[in-house]
Amino acid sequence: MSSADTSRAAFVAVDWGTSSFRAWLMAADGTELAESRGGEGMLHCATSGFAPVLRDHLGKLGALAELPVLICGMAGARQGWVEAPYLQTPTRLDALHAGAVGVDTDGDVRILPGLAQARADQPDVMRGEETQLLGVTEPEFSGIVCIPGTHSKWIHIDAGAVVDFATYMTGELFAVISQHSILMHAVEPGGAATDDGAPFRAGLASGLAAPAALTNALFRLRAAQLLGFEQRSDGAARLSGLLIGSEIAAARARFGADHPLRLIGAGRLGALYREALVASGFNVNECDAEQASRRGLVKAARQIWGARF
Amino acid sequence: MSSADTSRAAFVAVDWGTSSFRAWLMAADGTELAESRGGEGMLHCATSGFAPVLRDHLGKLGALAELPVLICGMAGARQGWVEAPYLQTPTRLDALHAGAVGVDTDGDVRILPGLAQARADQPDVMRGEETQLLGVTEPEFSGIVCIPGTHSKWIHIDAGAVVDFATYMTGELFAVISQHSILMHAVEPGGAATDDGAPFRAGLASGLAAPAALTNALFRLRAAQLLGFEQRSDGAARLSGLLIGSEIAAARARFGADHPLRLIGAGRLGALYREALVASGFNVNECDAEQASRRGLVKAARQIWGARF
Repeated sequence: MSSADTSRAAFVAVDWGTSSFRAWLMAADGTELAESRGGEGMLHCATSGFAPVLRDHLGKLGALAELPVLICGMAGARQGWVEAPYLQTPTRLDALHAGAVGVDTDGDVRILPGLAQARADQPDVMRGEETQLLGVTEPEFSGIVCIPGTHSKWIHIDAGAVVDFATYMTGELFAVISQHSILMHAVEPGGAATDDGAPFRAGLASGLAAPAALTNALFRLRAAQLLGFEQRSDGAARLSGLLIGSEIAAARARFGADHPLRLIGAGRLGALYREALVASGFNVNECDAEQASRRGLVKAARQIWGARF
Repeated sequence: MSSADTSRAAFVAVDWGTSSFRAWLMAADGTELAESRGGEGMLHCATSGFAPVLRDHLGKLGALAELPVLICGMAGARQGWVEAPYLQTPTRLDALHAGAVGVDTDGDVRILPGLAQARADQPDVMRGEETQLLGVTEPEFSGIVCIPGTHSKWIHIDAGAVVDFATYMTGELFAVISQHSILMHAVEPGGAATDDGAPFRAGLASGLAAPAALTNALFRLRAAQLLGFEQRSDGAARLSGLLIGSEIAAARARFGADHPLRLIGAGRLGALYREALVASGFNVNECDAEQASRRGLVKAARQIWGARF
């Protein structure tokens, strides 16, 4: 992007995750003017500091010192830069901006809160996804949103308010099981949870059909290869399908498949989930994950600094 | 045990697992005369050799060179000492001895086979547990056997024959999740899957009630602590209960709870399973795991070398 564009800059949008940093110089009309990304996530900054990382990226963006900065994600966690306490469900998404916390640093820097479901029977938390939800929904949206990933989130939104949500450890289980359990012998190193084809679909069907027998299905992956029914080269795709199928079966039982579903996906994983969700009877509308974050930050920024836009 | 007893010795029984070695000097009447144990399991011996380890333990037992040796477990795996090919289900347990494979070494040394369920829809394998099954069942036993552990086994036996079995990765999932996932923050280091009390029972109830939502229940363990509903000191017991509950719910759905159930347990884990199984409606009869192995080896040895006993 040309640096000439930066004269139109209205604010800086930042998605500050556990292990990644992404900042965009945004125009008042929501156009992205420049981007700066890096690996300085919360885990990195918890020891090295947050302010220098932000300053560095603002420099790369060519952002003027007086531009306000709005941040979402783990920078607002207790172990982050400044804690932005969770908003509790049920909560309207267009109330997110009211929970933003100012940072005592150069300029006007604010961090959006995460959401907490403070119910003893269904406790759950999110940080960063709430901003994506704001980005992909209209003010009175009702339906389900699915955000796949390390910790997949399913969210029930009713007339613009988050009323229920649940996290499934799908991506993280894929990683720890394929790297640290006996299934390391059944999954080729570097095999990602993004393979497709027949082995993925077979694993998916198994997970969808019998989510309650997941810990048995995991061992069957190993036994099937020992007995010559399956190939190690298909192991990663099967494991991925099995875990995604288990997630979708559990979420469908909890949230129902009769709502419109927005899928906030990225790359190959997003495409796999779309295929799996359609096969499971959902009516899917897919949105790009980064665009969802930016749009959410723009909406909240307009509510906070509306007069400047 | 006094070495004077060794004059009654009829054979040596060996349970040679993945990471442990246990040998017993046995009398013809099934009495244990001496014991020798060590950490030289299959993984150790695959590089250092099996014969010297056996010789060393036979010396410690005071066993005469002409005594026959019967081995069960991973020493018979493909990556073990000599492969003892799986017997395929359905198979009678009193046919195990017929699958024993002789080892080309000093003396008469034989390894019992494992069992394979060579069905594309329910592939499964065991090595070592088949000998425990032989040990704890009468010739025409019908019912279910549960063998908890790293890879918990549930076995349906009909009139002395194994007709169906399934493995659940319960113990291994406890280990990899508590050591390598985000739940390392929710489980105290060294917390074993053997805690009891209210947190175990709460996790158990959750796993039994909703086995299909396991990957969500795992994340809830973390969220409940973040939100102050639960304590980290209870995390290991809750995780243990959750995984055991999920296993029992899935196994109950597959095998039914209306059969007599033999539990082959050891120590605290055996007691936890007994409590959990009784709470789940099973009629439980508990047997000690090591005794089960020894009794199975004695039964098979009598079939092989009957004339000497």
